[in-house]
Amino acid sequence: MSRMGAKAETSAVPTDAPFVETVVSDGIATLTLNRPGRANVLSAAMIAALDAALVAVDADPAVRVVVIAANGRIFSAGHDLAEVRDLPDRAAREALFARCSAMMQRIPALRVPVIAKVQGAAVAAGCQLVASCDLAYAADGARFGVSGINLGLFCATPSVPLTRSVTAKQAADLLFTGRLIAAERAAAIGLVSAAVPADTLGAAVDEAARAIAAKLPAAVALGKRLLRDQAGLGLAAAYDLAGRRMAENMDDTETGRLIDGFLGRS
Amino acid sequence: MSRMGAKAETSAVPTDAPFVETVVSDGIATLTLNRPGRANVLSAAMIAALDAALVAVDADPAVRVVVIAANGRIFSAGHDLAEVRDLPDRAAREALFARCSAMMQRIPALRVPVIAKVQGAAVAAGCQLVASCDLAYAADGARFGVSGINLGLFCATPSVPLTRSVTAKQAADLLFTGRLIAAERAAAIGLVSAAVPADTLGAAVDEAARAIAAKLPAAVALGKRLLRDQAGLGLAAAYDLAGRRMAENMDDTETGRLIDGFLGRS
Amino acid sequence: MSRMGAKAETSAVPTDAPFVETVVSDGIATLTLNRPGRANVLSAAMIAALDAALVAVDADPAVRVVVIAANGRIFSAGHDLAEVRDLPDRAAREALFARCSAMMQRIPALRVPVIAKVQGAAVAAGCQLVASCDLAYAADGARFGVSGINLGLFCATPSVPLTRSVTAKQAADLLFTGRLIAAERAAAIGLVSAAVPADTLGAAVDEAARAIAAKLPAAVALGKRLLRDQAGLGLAAAYDLAGRRMAENMDDTETGRLIDGFLGRS
Repeated sequence: MSRMGAKAETSAVPTDAPFVETVVSDGIATLTLNRPGRANVLSAAMIAALDAALVAVDADPAVRVVVIAANGRIFSAGHDLAEVRDLPDRAAREALFARCSAMMQRIPALRVPVIAKVQGAAVAAGCQLVASCDLAYAADGARFGVSGINLGLFCATPSVPLTRSVTAKQAADLLFTGRLIAAERAAAIGLVSAAVPADTLGAAVDEAARAIAAKLPAAVALGKRLLRDQAGLGLAAAYDLAGRRMAENMDDTETGRLIDGFLGRS
Repeated sequence: MSRMGAKAETSAVPTDAPFVETVVSDGIATLTLNRPGRANVLSAAMIAALDAALVAVDADPAVRVVVIAANGRIFSAGHDLAEVRDLPDRAAREALFARCSAMMQRIPALRVPVIAKVQGAAVAAGCQLVASCDLAYAADGARFGVSGINLGLFCATPSVPLTRSVTAKQAADLLFTGRLIAAERAAAIGLVSAAVPADTLGAAVDEAARAIAAKLPAAVALGKRLLRDQAGLGLAAAYDLAGRRMAENMDDTETGRLIDGFLGRS
Repeated sequence: MSRMGAKAETSAVPTDAPFVETVVSDGIATLTLNRPGRANVLSAAMIAALDAALVAVDADPAVRVVVIAANGRIFSAGHDLAEVRDLPDRAAREALFARCSAMMQRIPALRVPVIAKVQGAAVAAGCQLVASCDLAYAADGARFGVSGINLGLFCATPSVPLTRSVTAKQAADLLFTGRLIAAERAAAIGLVSAAVPADTLGAAVDEAARAIAAKLPAAVALGKRLLRDQAGLGLAAAYDLAGRRMAENMDDTETGRLIDGFLGRS
C-alpha cells in the first residue's frame, strides 16, 4: 500500500523507465523493482513487468537462480491502492488480483530457485512476494507486515503464501493486528531465511545465489519441481515420487562425474 | 487435569457463580473462566458455559474481538478427570469429548478473532484451548503442556490443534514426554504469539484486542472466514478463493473511505 | 554421502560386525549404527539391518521407546554413493531408494516413539533419518544438511520428511544451497527437539527415553498411531477420530488406576 502524491511523482526515475530491470550475470538473474519513488508498488504495470521478467529468465538457459531486488529505500509497499480503487467494478478488481496471483504462483513454478533481497519494508502484497520466494534475506532494519486490515482491506491473497510459510498464530497476529515486525522476528518465524546487517545484505544474497548457481542446473530444476509436486501429498505418495526422481537424477552424466570425483574415482 | 479435593472446595467463588463471566466493553468481549479454586477445569458445565458464551458474543454485533481469560493462578488444568472417570461408559465419554471438540472448533468458526490470555499454566485441554485461539499471550511464568500421558491418557484431542500449531518434533516431544515448557519456549515454537512479563500481560492483550477492535469488522470477519476456508486447499484453489474475497472486500463502502483517506483523496 | 577409501577400510570395526547393534534395557531399545569407519553410510546392508532392527524391537513387548544412535564421530553421512553409483541401472537405484524410503516410513508406523541421538553430522539421508524420528537431540557440535546438490544430486527423498519438519524457506535454503547448519540452528527451526552440550547428549536422550518408557505403553501406542492417522485430515475429521481414541484410552484399567491415584481416590 502506498500513498500516491506529488512528492512521489518527482522521483528521479523517469516515468518511462522499465518497471523491472533485468540483469543476468554469472548465471544469476537479478530482477529489480524500479519505482522507488512510489515504494515499488505492485501496480498492474509492475505485476505485468515482473511476470514477463520471470517468464523471460525462466526461458534463458544461462539463468541458474533469480534474485528479486528493489531500488530505493523500500522493497515493496504492496498493491497500488489508487489504481485498485479507480478500477470500474468488482470484476476488474478480481481480474487484477488474479493476474497478481498468477505472477506470485509463477515463482514456485519457475525452473530455478528465487531469492528475495529485502530492505526497508515489505508490506501487504510486498510481503506476499517475499513469502512466495524460495529463499529470502532481509536487511536488519527491514520491516514486514500484512497491514491491509488497517485500511479495512484484509490481506487475503497475501495470507495464502503467508499461512504456508509461518505458523498459524504468527500469521493470524500479523493479519488481524496489522502490525509490522522487524527483520529479526521475520527470520525467527521463518518468513525469511535470515536477517543480516544492512551493509552485508548484498554479500549474503550474492553468497546464496552463487552457491545455487554453482550447482548442476538439471538437479536444481528437478528439486524445484519436486518441492512443488510433492507438497500436500501423503507420506507414501511423496516418497514414491521422490524416489523415482532421485533415481532419474542419478542417470545424469554430470551427476555421475561429480560423484566419482567425490569418491576419488578417476 | 486437576486434583479435586477438600481444599479446592473452599474456594471463594460460590458454587452457583457462573462458570464463565462475560464482559463486553469497547467491542472487546472478555470471557473469563471462573472456577479458580478448581484450576478452571473444563468440566461439562464449563465446556457448556464457554460454548454458550462464544455463541452469544458471536451473535452480538457490538463484539469485534474475544479474549478468553481465567480467574486465579491457573489458566486451565484441562478436563475434569474426576467427572470423566465417573461417567458410566465409553459412549458417555465420547459424547463429552465430542462436546468439548465442538466448543474448540467454534473458535476458528467464530466471526471474530479470539485471543487467549494465559497465566500460571495451560495444561492438556487447557493447552488445547490456547492452541485453538487465533492469538495468544502468556505471562512469563506460565507453563504449557499436554501431560495426560503421565496418567496413562494420551492427549488425543489436544494433539489436533497442537500439531497444527507447532512443528512435528515439538508436538511429539510434549505429547510423549508429558513435560511442561515455559512461556518463552511456547512463544519460540509458535504455540503462543508472545511471552510477556506477568505484570504487562493485561496491557499486551489489551493492546492486541484494541488493535483488532479498531479494524473494520466486515474485513476482519471476511479474513477470519478466509483463513478457515483456504486451509488445506492447494495453492491455486486458495489463491482463486482469496482473490475473489479480496475483490469483495474492496466493494465495502467503508474500505473505500479508509483507502481514500490514506491516499489523501477527499 | 561418504568417500569410501582405503583409510575407512582400516576401521577398528570388523567387516563382519553387525551393521546395527541392538541393546534393550529398561524398556529402551538402542539401535546403534555401527560403521563408524565409513561414517555410518546408509548402504543397502545398513538400510536392511536398520529396518530389521526396527521390526524386531516393534515386535518386542518389552520395548517402550527406541533410540537411534551411532558409533563414531559421525551420526550418518547418508547414502553409500559408491554403492548407488555401481548399481546396474535406474531400476536398481529406484529399488534401493524404495527400500530406504520404506525403512524411513517404518519409523512413524512403529508402535513406540523413536528418538534420534545425533553427534558429529547428519547429512543427506542421515539428516532424513533424523527428520523421520519423533524426537531428536543433537550434540552442540553437530551439523545438519541435505547437501546432495553439491554433487549434482538433489536430496529428493530427504526433502519429504524435511519439508514436513521445518518451514518452507528453511527447507529450500538447505536443499538448494547445500549448506550445513549447526545444531543450535537445527533446534531453532524444529529439525531437532534440542541441542545440548556434547557431554550431556547421553543424559538428555536418556532422560527423554526414560520419561517415555515410564508411561503406560497402551497410551503411548495409541498416541503414536493417532499422530499418524490424523495427519492431513481436516479439523472436524481429526477431532472425531481423536475423541473416539481418547474415550477408548479411558477404558484402560491402568489409566483408570493412575487417574484415581492422581485424584486421591483409593
